[in-house]
Amino acid sequence: MDVGAINCLSYEDFVSVFGNVVERCPIIPAAVWSQRPFPSVAALQAAIFDFIDALPESGKEGILRCHPDLAGKELRGGTLTRESREEQGAAGLDRMDAAEVSRMASLNAQYKERFGFPFVICARASDKAAIAEQMCERLRNAHAQERSRAVEEVKKICRLRLQGLVLTDQINKL
Amino acid sequence: MDVGAINCLSYEDFVSVFGNVVERCPIIPAAVWSQRPFPSVAALQAAIFDFIDALPESGKEGILRCHPDLAGKELRGGTLTRESREEQGAAGLDRMDAAEVSRMASLNAQYKERFGFPFVICARASDKAAIAEQMCERLRNAHAQERSRAVEEVKKICRLRLQGLVLTDQINKL
Repeated sequence: MDVGAINCLSYEDFVSVFGNVVERCPIIPAAVWSQRPFPSVAALQAAIFDFIDALPESGKEGILRCHPDLAGKELRGGTLTRESREEQGAAGLDRMDAAEVSRMASLNAQYKERFGFPFVICARASDKAAIAEQMCERLRNAHAQERSRAVEEVKKICRLRLQGLVLTDQINKL
Repeated sequence: MDVGAINCLSYEDFVSVFGNVVERCPIIPAAVWSQRPFPSVAALQAAIFDFIDALPESGKEGILRCHPDLAGKELRGGTLTRESREEQGAAGLDRMDAAEVSRMASLNAQYKERFGFPFVICARASDKAAIAEQMCERLRNAHAQERSRAVEEVKKICRLRLQGLVLTDQINKL
């Protein structure tokens, strides 16, 4: 797949392919479609990141609040998006013992109570032990610092989702 | 239900209740949660409208592109959100004869080709005949004019969805 194929997509096909590169925020790829043609996939990614950066701080928190808990009730209930399910699985969050589940639930609750949004991390670039460590560490951050840190993670997740879509050639399957 | 109950909601419950007041844009209510406590439901609505107004023009187009076609494949395929299904049903769009379906498909296609987003109208405040007339009329608008017009409709839809949630007391059912 090349960027030429991306630039030929109708907004409907574009949103169908890229709609979840930022978790449950199809408005973001739907917005950047206005900027096509993209000279490269990197430029598409940059347009997404620019859109995120231009949002007010409340909008960035809105993005974070569209993310599920790690190892939370959506994982147990089977209601995660496909992408989140695969990412949480890759980090081993779907194969935890009772003590690990209980510790993660406690950390999630502390984190949400403190910041008013869920803990977001690029799970594919981590594993369940490192994630728990990161949660403890990031719980000590100031609010604005942690919001920025979490948005960085949203971008890492987005980068890997975009790469996955390009590599698996979803566009030619439309 | 009063605004006190709304102000007590966690972000998760808030997004669960208000997540689709703007079609498929949970980021918007998720963002405005940051501004609680709201002095009134009208203030919550104003916060949502302010968030929309502050988006770049591409972001407003992004909102429009998260909307389904009227009487389109999502209605036929049963994949509309509950709110859209009810609204399209209220306007009679689920009870059209073959000629009406064909005319609407043609108007949808012309509209999307011209503007790069789907035709959005507050279907509850209209009916299928008036909707087809409006499509013909709005097809003649300039791009920026029509984008503003469509965003006004998004706000009308949002207002009715909010009213519905308040009246049916969804919050006390959590």
